[in-house]
Amino acid sequence: MNFKFYNPTRLLFGAGNLSRLGEVISEKGKRALLVTGGGSVKHNGTFAKAVASLDKAGVAFVECSGIEPNPRISSVIRGAQIVREEKCDIIVALGGGSTMDASKLIAAAALYDGNPWDMILHGQEHVHIPTEALPVVTVPTLAATGSEMNCGAVITNEETSVKSFIKNDCLYPFAAIVDPELTVSVPKDQTAYGICDLITHVTEGYFNGIDGTPIQDRFAESVILTAMEWGPKAIANGNDLEARTQVQWAALVALNGWVQAGTNYAAPVHFIGHTISAYHDVTHAAGLAAINPSWMRFAAKTRPARFKQFARRIFELPAGKDDLVCAMKGIDLFEEFLVSIGCPTSLSQLGIDDKLFATYAKETIRVINDGNGRLPGRPAMSEQDIVDVLKAAL
Amino acid sequence: MNFKFYNPTRLLFGAGNLSRLGEVISEKGKRALLVTGGGSVKHNGTFAKAVASLDKAGVAFVECSGIEPNPRISSVIRGAQIVREEKCDIIVALGGGSTMDASKLIAAAALYDGNPWDMILHGQEHVHIPTEALPVVTVPTLAATGSEMNCGAVITNEETSVKSFIKNDCLYPFAAIVDPELTVSVPKDQTAYGICDLITHVTEGYFNGIDGTPIQDRFAESVILTAMEWGPKAIANGNDLEARTQVQWAALVALNGWVQAGTNYAAPVHFIGHTISAYHDVTHAAGLAAINPSWMRFAAKTRPARFKQFARRIFELPAGKDDLVCAMKGIDLFEEFLVSIGCPTSLSQLGIDDKLFATYAKETIRVINDGNGRLPGRPAMSEQDIVDVLKAAL
Repeated sequence: MNFKFYNPTRLLFGAGNLSRLGEVISEKGKRALLVTGGGSVKHNGTFAKAVASLDKAGVAFVECSGIEPNPRISSVIRGAQIVREEKCDIIVALGGGSTMDASKLIAAAALYDGNPWDMILHGQEHVHIPTEALPVVTVPTLAATGSEMNCGAVITNEETSVKSFIKNDCLYPFAAIVDPELTVSVPKDQTAYGICDLITHVTEGYFNGIDGTPIQDRFAESVILTAMEWGPKAIANGNDLEARTQVQWAALVALNGWVQAGTNYAAPVHFIGHTISAYHDVTHAAGLAAINPSWMRFAAKTRPARFKQFARRIFELPAGKDDLVCAMKGIDLFEEFLVSIGCPTSLSQLGIDDKLFATYAKETIRVINDGNGRLPGRPAMSEQDIVDVLKAAL
Repeated sequence: MNFKFYNPTRLLFGAGNLSRLGEVISEKGKRALLVTGGGSVKHNGTFAKAVASLDKAGVAFVECSGIEPNPRISSVIRGAQIVREEKCDIIVALGGGSTMDASKLIAAAALYDGNPWDMILHGQEHVHIPTEALPVVTVPTLAATGSEMNCGAVITNEETSVKSFIKNDCLYPFAAIVDPELTVSVPKDQTAYGICDLITHVTEGYFNGIDGTPIQDRFAESVILTAMEWGPKAIANGNDLEARTQVQWAALVALNGWVQAGTNYAAPVHFIGHTISAYHDVTHAAGLAAINPSWMRFAAKTRPARFKQFARRIFELPAGKDDLVCAMKGIDLFEEFLVSIGCPTSLSQLGIDDKLFATYAKETIRVINDGNGRLPGRPAMSEQDIVDVLKAAL
C-alpha cells in the first residue's frame, strides 16, 4: 500500500437535512445555479423545499433543468453558459448521479475558456486538466452513484457516442447534503438499480485492487452485506426510512474513497458498461447488472482465492476442496440476488444483441487503456476478452 | 443517523513517504517548528531523514523537542512561544500521539493571546473555542493514537492533574505523512500498547454508539480483526514491514472518523484512563488495557446482544442460548488476546492500588459529564459505577 487520500467534502447526513441547504450554500455563495434532471424533484416536492431553504437564507438562484440520465457534454456547456451569463458563484446539484456529475463539470467549465470535453479522459490523457472550479453542493435524490462525496464525473459526448470521465481534486463538492427522506419516492426499479450500482462500485475495488488490503476487504464486505440486507427492505417498502437511510449510507460510502483507499483498483465492468450505455442509453446500473456476473466468472478463473473469499464472507459458503467451485457458487448466488431485486442480468433483457460487441470492445479500450491496448483490471482485458464476457452476458 | 462529517487532511500513506516531507511542507510554509518527543527519532535516524527532506525543499526549521508521553500544557505554551519568537508558519509533528497532540494545540495557541488551557474541555464547556490554527503536518513514528488524521488532542495540566481534550475542525492536520518504515524500531511493548490503543478506539465506538449502524459495526470489526491478525506479527518481528503497514493503517482508520461516522459515540474507558494517567503518568494504552475488559463486563449486562455480536463476529463463538454467556466468553477471549500480546490487564500490574478510586471517579466526571453527573456512555456511569469497574480491574 502506497497511496494518497484526500476528501475535503463537508457531509451533512440524515433525514431532514434538506432544510439546511440555504444555510450551507450561504457559506460560499450568494447566487446559485440550481441544476436538476428530468423534473421528478418538481413533482415530489423536493424542489419546493430546496427553494424554501434558499429563500430563507437569502440565496438567489437560476435554474438549469433537464440534465439527462447519461449526462451530455452539451448540457454541461449549456450550464456553464448560464453560470457566466447570470454570474452564479456556486452550483447546487439537486438530483441523481447524472445531475451531480454534470454539476461538477459545469463548475470547472465555467472557469475554463475551452471546450469542457477537453477535461474528460481520452485513452490515457486529458487535453486539459482543471485546477479550479466553482464550489458545488450536492443533494442526491437517489442512493446510487456515490457522486455526492467524490471528485469524479462521468459525461457522454452524444456526437461521438463516447462516455468517459474526469476525476480531479478541484471537483470535490464543497458540501454534500444527504437526506434519505428525498429517496422515499424513488420507484422500485430505480431503487434496485441504485443498489446494484453501489454494490458494483465495491466489487470493482474488491476484485480489481491490489493484494494485502485486509481492512479494505472487510470494509467492502460491510457495504455489500448491508446493501443486501437493507436494499430489499427499501424496495419492498419505499417509505421505510430506516432502510432508505442504510441504503443511502451504503451508496455514499461505496464511492467516497474510504473503501477503496490504497487498493489502486480498476473498474473494468464500469468502463464496458459506459460504452454500452453511450450506444444504447440504458440506465447505468442496469448495464452493470447485465455484465457484472459474467465478468466475475471470467475473472474468477485467474483469481479463484479472492472470489472464494467473497463467496465465504458474503454468502457463508463452505470452503470445499476447490477454490474455483466455491467461487463460482458465490457468483451464482450474487446473480440470484440481482434477479431477486429485479435487476436484468443479461444484455438481451436490455434489448441489446451481439451485433456491435467488437465495436464496444474496441471503443472501451480506446477510451481507457493501460498503454498496451488492454482494459485495466485483474486481469487486464484484451478486446477478445471483452467480447467473450459480453457473449456470456447475452 | 443524523450527523456531520468533515476531514480535509491530505494523507500520504506508505513506506518511504518521509522523503516527501519537505515538498509537502513547502505547499503551506517556509519556516517550520519541528516538534519531537523524548529523542528516539534522533537515535533511529528518522530525524536526520526528515531534516534532509526539509533541506532539499529549502524549508527552514527550529526545534521544539522533549514533548512528554502525556503531553503537558507547559510544553504547549513553550512551543507556541517558539513559534511566535521564531516566526514559524507551519508546525511539523515528528513523533507519537503526544507529539502530534501537542503540535495541534501549539498551532492554535500560537494564534491565541490567552492561556491555551482555555481551549481544553472542562466538564461540558471550553473557555475559548479556537477558529484558526497554523497548518500542521503530522509524521507519526508509532501506530497507536490515530492522531495523525483527526482534529483531536489530549493534553495534561500537570499543576492540577487534569487530562482533558480539544476537538475542533481548525486542528485537522493539513497533511499526514504516514510512513510505516518509521515504526520498525518501535519496541515490542510499545507496539503492543499501540495495538491495544487502536482496538480500544474502535471498541469505544462499537459499544457506546447508537443502534442501527450496520456498516459502521462491520467497519469496526474490520479494524479489530486486522489488528488482531497483524498485530502479533508486528510484535514477533518488528522488521516485518507488511505487518507494520497493516497495523499502521488500522491505527489511522481507527480514529480518523470513518469507523465512527454517524455513531454519536462516547468513550468512557478513555476518560477513566485519562484520569488515571494524569495521576500516575502510565502509558496511555497500558491504562486502557487494564480497564477495558472490566468495563466491558460491566457494560455487557445492559447490552448483551451487542457484546454477543462482538463475540460471534470477532471470535466466531457459537450463539448459544444466553446472550450474556456468549458475550462474557467473548470478553474473556479479548482479555486473553491482550495478555497474549503483553498488555497489562489489571491496575495492580501498573502499580496502582484502590486508595484513590473515589477520587479518580469524581475527577473523571468533573472533566466530562452528561450534565447529570454521569460519565457519557452506554450505560452512562455514576461515580459508583466507575469505582466498581476500577475494583473489578484491580
